[in-house]
Amino acid sequence: MKKKECIVLLSGGLDSTVLTHYVMRRRDRMPIALSFNYGQRHKKELNLARQTAKKLGIKHKIIKIPLDKLFDNSALLDKKTKMPGEHYTHKNQRVTVVPNRNMIMLSFAIGLAENLKISEVYYAAHKNDHAIYPDCRPAFLNPMNKASMHATYSCVQVLAPFINKTKKDLVGIGYKLDIDFLTTWSCYEGKKFACGTCATCQERLEAFHKNKLMDPLEYEIQ
Amino acid sequence: MKKKECIVLLSGGLDSTVLTHYVMRRRDRMPIALSFNYGQRHKKELNLARQTAKKLGIKHKIIKIPLDKLFDNSALLDKKTKMPGEHYTHKNQRVTVVPNRNMIMLSFAIGLAENLKISEVYYAAHKNDHAIYPDCRPAFLNPMNKASMHATYSCVQVLAPFINKTKKDLVGIGYKLDIDFLTTWSCYEGKKFACGTCATCQERLEAFHKNKLMDPLEYEIQ
Repeated sequence: MKKKECIVLLSGGLDSTVLTHYVMRRRDRMPIALSFNYGQRHKKELNLARQTAKKLGIKHKIIKIPLDKLFDNSALLDKKTKMPGEHYTHKNQRVTVVPNRNMIMLSFAIGLAENLKISEVYYAAHKNDHAIYPDCRPAFLNPMNKASMHATYSCVQVLAPFINKTKKDLVGIGYKLDIDFLTTWSCYEGKKFACGTCATCQERLEAFHKNKLMDPLEYEIQ
Repeated sequence: MKKKECIVLLSGGLDSTVLTHYVMRRRDRMPIALSFNYGQRHKKELNLARQTAKKLGIKHKIIKIPLDKLFDNSALLDKKTKMPGEHYTHKNQRVTVVPNRNMIMLSFAIGLAENLKISEVYYAAHKNDHAIYPDCRPAFLNPMNKASMHATYSCVQVLAPFINKTKKDLVGIGYKLDIDFLTTWSCYEGKKFACGTCATCQERLEAFHKNKLMDPLEYEIQ
């Protein structure tokens, strides 16, 4: 069977790495990984995205867009902003939102799909994101998918197969797919070891714990 | 009355220049112009966008995005591709589509609006665009607007007040607003004079003609 090419947004974080492996495992799909150098706080994830694409033997494109020069209200774009230590569902975590990030990235992915006559774009939105990140919710995904289909001659679909799955589910899927979790990075800080205290570290550790698995990453604080 | 800030996509073409003046004329709105340096064939429009913003005394941002390095199938991104001379509704004009251009630009505009706590983004899609440009049609605008409102805490709306107006209507509106049409450029070529034969020149000349007006631009061929 000839595999049909599709585009997968791959940041190098846990969610999108699991998604890329998940799509790759299908007999009928061949992912092209798409990453963004958008002025994020650190490049650890981007380097891991390169590793994952290389390991899977898939094409990988990195697009440079200057979101850090455009937006001044996100802790993910500004190294000086302190990361709030609260739970990932806490209102304070809104400081980690990059305005409209997923729509911006998806719009490039959809354009690239249209250019290559590809009809599917995947991204790794999941249920735990819903509390803080509006562009990870079904209420966004559904009209976004519709807008994409109407904006393109190839009728490009936007798909988020994990939208109703939790981070716990994703770690479980990754485990079954035999993913080396050392090739994924979640911590908002870009230090040698994951901090273990920021919201995304807490969420990741919780997801491993609920699966009765050990996260192989090294943490400053466990 | 305090004017409410909003974002207007301003390319420097006729349609978006008329739109910027049109929004500016409202007593309750203050546009911020947003333009893109995306690797287009020529920079004549971008320079005119600067002039228009300066003349109106409004803020103006220019975002650089590398669409010419990403897409290889659009005549608007490649100087070597010959522009087809057919009517603007002819299927051959599809070569002038930049894949998903409006969604990409709108997604940045929506992000910027969210960053600035602004709740309206305007773009100049109109009826004559419907034949060739899918991202100028109501079928795109409606879900795009919905996706935007759901993607942002400021509930950013995407508005296209000219979506059911023709180019003829836009020239009429521009004339009533006393716009100097010399500060707008439509021709796909970036030469000293407008070519007069490409689809967008034909469309523009036809719109002036239907309004019984003279286009002040100089053309190679009339």
